[in-house]
Amino acid sequence: MRLSRFHLHTEKETPAEAEIVSHKLMLKAGMIRKLAAGLYTWTPLGLRVLRKVEAVVREEMNRAGAIEMAMPSIQPRELWEETGRWEKFGPQLLKLRDRKDQEYCFTPTAEEAVTDFFRQEVASYKQLPLNFYQITTKFRDEIRPRFGVMRAREFVMKDAYSFHIDDASLAAEYRNMYDTYARIFTRLGLRFRAVAADTGAIGGNASHEFHVLADSGEDALAFCETSDYAANVELAEAIAPGPRPAPSEPLREVATPTQKTCEEVAALLGIPLARTVKSVAVIGTGPDGQPQFTLALVRGDHMVNTIKLAKLPGLAEYRLANEAEILEYLGSEPGFLGPLNPRKPIRVIADRSVAAMADFVIGANKPGAHIAGVNWGRDLPEPEVADLRNVVEGDPSPDGKGVLRIARGIEVGHVFALGRKYSEAMHCTVLDAHGKAVHPAMGCYGIGVSRIVAAAIEQNHDDAGICWPEAMAPWQVAVCIINPKQDPAVTAAAEALYSELLAAGIDTVLDDRGLRPGAMFADIELIGIPHRVVVSARGLEAGHYEYRARTASASETLDKVTLLTRLGR
Amino acid sequence: MRLSRFHLHTEKETPAEAEIVSHKLMLKAGMIRKLAAGLYTWTPLGLRVLRKVEAVVREEMNRAGAIEMAMPSIQPRELWEETGRWEKFGPQLLKLRDRKDQEYCFTPTAEEAVTDFFRQEVASYKQLPLNFYQITTKFRDEIRPRFGVMRAREFVMKDAYSFHIDDASLAAEYRNMYDTYARIFTRLGLRFRAVAADTGAIGGNASHEFHVLADSGEDALAFCETSDYAANVELAEAIAPGPRPAPSEPLREVATPTQKTCEEVAALLGIPLARTVKSVAVIGTGPDGQPQFTLALVRGDHMVNTIKLAKLPGLAEYRLANEAEILEYLGSEPGFLGPLNPRKPIRVIADRSVAAMADFVIGANKPGAHIAGVNWGRDLPEPEVADLRNVVEGDPSPDGKGVLRIARGIEVGHVFALGRKYSEAMHCTVLDAHGKAVHPAMGCYGIGVSRIVAAAIEQNHDDAGICWPEAMAPWQVAVCIINPKQDPAVTAAAEALYSELLAAGIDTVLDDRGLRPGAMFADIELIGIPHRVVVSARGLEAGHYEYRARTASASETLDKVTLLTRLGR
Repeated sequence: MRLSRFHLHTEKETPAEAEIVSHKLMLKAGMIRKLAAGLYTWTPLGLRVLRKVEAVVREEMNRAGAIEMAMPSIQPRELWEETGRWEKFGPQLLKLRDRKDQEYCFTPTAEEAVTDFFRQEVASYKQLPLNFYQITTKFRDEIRPRFGVMRAREFVMKDAYSFHIDDASLAAEYRNMYDTYARIFTRLGLRFRAVAADTGAIGGNASHEFHVLADSGEDALAFCETSDYAANVELAEAIAPGPRPAPSEPLREVATPTQKTCEEVAALLGIPLARTVKSVAVIGTGPDGQPQFTLALVRGDHMVNTIKLAKLPGLAEYRLANEAEILEYLGSEPGFLGPLNPRKPIRVIADRSVAAMADFVIGANKPGAHIAGVNWGRDLPEPEVADLRNVVEGDPSPDGKGVLRIARGIEVGHVFALGRKYSEAMHCTVLDAHGKAVHPAMGCYGIGVSRIVAAAIEQNHDDAGICWPEAMAPWQVAVCIINPKQDPAVTAAAEALYSELLAAGIDTVLDDRGLRPGAMFADIELIGIPHRVVVSARGLEAGHYEYRARTASASETLDKVTLLTRLGR
Repeated sequence: MRLSRFHLHTEKETPAEAEIVSHKLMLKAGMIRKLAAGLYTWTPLGLRVLRKVEAVVREEMNRAGAIEMAMPSIQPRELWEETGRWEKFGPQLLKLRDRKDQEYCFTPTAEEAVTDFFRQEVASYKQLPLNFYQITTKFRDEIRPRFGVMRAREFVMKDAYSFHIDDASLAAEYRNMYDTYARIFTRLGLRFRAVAADTGAIGGNASHEFHVLADSGEDALAFCETSDYAANVELAEAIAPGPRPAPSEPLREVATPTQKTCEEVAALLGIPLARTVKSVAVIGTGPDGQPQFTLALVRGDHMVNTIKLAKLPGLAEYRLANEAEILEYLGSEPGFLGPLNPRKPIRVIADRSVAAMADFVIGANKPGAHIAGVNWGRDLPEPEVADLRNVVEGDPSPDGKGVLRIARGIEVGHVFALGRKYSEAMHCTVLDAHGKAVHPAMGCYGIGVSRIVAAAIEQNHDDAGICWPEAMAPWQVAVCIINPKQDPAVTAAAEALYSELLAAGIDTVLDDRGLRPGAMFADIELIGIPHRVVVSARGLEAGHYEYRARTASASETLDKVTLLTRLGR
């Protein structure tokens, strides 16, 4: 491509509306333009990158034996009623009516449509396993679309759905897709991690998320560097620490006139935060079916994990207690809560770490006071114990093979073993080897194709702009001409190099726009071309080209043979 | 691709709901499946064909210098309000509301979105001309979706939009796109014709439609075989015939007791249909602004062209006259109308052919009677003359270079010179060479990508199924194995041939499903693979392969070298 015949429109100013670096850089580089909230036009530059991601995803899905097809964007309500998702999906499902007042939605995912397709097309176990996929536009009506294409309403997703006669076949395809996803993100040149994940709304048995690692990631991931263990922090198990020490301090009230948080109390008392205990007051359901006031206790330096909490008996639909309830049960205002001497009977659940503490500090259930030297068994009855908290950096890995590290990630892929949820709901069966109608097991496998573009930028950028991994770059090489109009020999040499690179299958752009070198180089760096070659009169005289890798700190002077080798010809 | 690992699902029965051959064959071959009215899933087989069409369109658009981008499917009402098309587009525009009750539509075309993009991106004439295109899903809420993907509601369209500083530049790009479209349809292997077209609702100055020729086509096309002239029959000019002969018959009333149509009257009188005149009664608007009763006269063997009629003064919003009006003005019931002796003053407009007639027959304005021997100037005043009729086969070509033929076609492409309609309505300007803000001229260029698939089948099929042109076929070659499980040597030879063809860049499918030959061949013919090679034990012994072109009447026995040459290796 010659840039003079392309449409490249970069911005000097950083757009005010963008909050995260990928959104800023995609706007500055002119990859996307906003049409309305959460709706973006992909410019010619942006589309080149999007298509490169699509191509890698398609190639690897085909290699894995999945079969591409395409389902409609607009799908009828009746189909979504069959699984109950017409209501259950919630307001993210964009609903609409046609001229005949029939109801439809814009597909956010296609379990229903593919199951309907399958039940019309496939009759026998002999045709299984099958894995159908599509790379199409999806829509989720986000309540607060933001971050550019990272959380757009309209986006490009690769969604695949597999069908199996039994769980063993599903497990094999699940592994196949897991491995395929790893190949896709590896080929795209991204640092990523696959983690065990909560199955959330889609349901099913097994589930892994694939995250592109980036400091700005929305999700916290726990992983062990000395083993394969990795999980979303939401799901990672915090295992019980060693045995509880014996009590060594007397129980005593300490004055904490204005100190309400564990941090403030620890600072006042001059003790480690890990010696304090945080009491979170919630309302669950007691064995009698009545509301039950409950204190969940975690160490001062830990955070309550709400997903874990909700998995405990009686807490599936818990809510935070309000001030009146706290006053009623504990006789205290928030900030000074503790499990000792409640006004009425309460349930107390201690995190595993809290259950292993001795001589700890809790709120006194009265304003301006905490109690120190608290011990289980001596001052308080032995508590109900559970894993209640998020893991933190340095926790032992649940597989016992090291310690956990925490990284931030952006979810770009997800594999689910769905089981028979959809095939049962939609009365989808095949005949098995005995001629009996059985519900096939299903898996589903998504990749946020357009989101990958933003995630890659979050991971790969510097002050000058984007640093594309080679597989995603709009072009691999930029050949820049200094003063194309003034010196025909320079232009001719650049054109020759450009043709040679194209002929070698290297996706190259010729910057023949005639900009001043500073402006030209700034554009090429901003849009993140991995390799830049400058052709100038002075260089030609000396028989060399100026080469610079996007991530290198300086240029090199290379003769043509060395240059071509460097560019992979 | 090995068919055993693909999903091919053909049907033996012709689906009852399909009316036209392409719809029937696409369902029988398993290319599409209906999800809801006008909404189709493209199966793996269908998608292969669709993607081949897309690829040719993309390559030729790129070659022509157009630049690919992608605009959102969902577009805000405000944008469409700027051109008035939010209302004017009518009920085909699928409108919807998001969770915040904002209004949007599903894009049926993207003049507004691209003009909005352009006005944000382009400031100077120096950046022009530009031609942006996209290949994306569009939606038109057809009142009666039918004929499968031929008239689906959701479809794939290539739409391109060009921007120009002046009309000369627009004209050059219009020609470039016209030539590009011709290359696209030629490469796809389709018999097609470009015709001058009515610009319809999109408006503008020049417009050509590209039609795939097929007997089942919805549109009638007039073209001259000895010149370049071609036009939609709606638009083709019917030129005036030679001079009017002198009167030779007396005026006389003839009894036509039950004969109301020109055909019946001509048969009764034993005269050519071309000697009769048909009177069509309509209500237009007179010079005084009042309703004006008007008779439009065409020869008995001609049809009134309603588009031409509506272009005449006073008839822009004409309607057919009702019986009461006919009785009031002519004193007659329908079936016996004529311009002679009306009861009240009327306007009479004669088609050019009628104006050149002598001794003709008209209705007598009373039941059971016609009048013969009618002559202009003698019995009737000289009429207002206009081109009122559709051209017919054998008419002189308007360019004077031969005679017209009529063919039927399916519109698959359309190029428009839009002019400044959208740039003016949307206040889109660029600075010209003098620093003055001017509205760019625009062109738009559409191709119905998914429609081409159906149109190609309408043109290329036989009793056994589809006969794909090579460029559109799901695979170019099918290698069929007879009894793959019984004879490993046969399978090995077929696999070797398959690999050799793939390595030569020939898109080949291996039919390794193990079907009986009859069922296997029926499938391969139904899905329209251009070249079939059969590998059998008997053939191998003799060192040959059985080859058959899809459109050939018999198979040939070829050795491997001849076979590979025949397949283009």
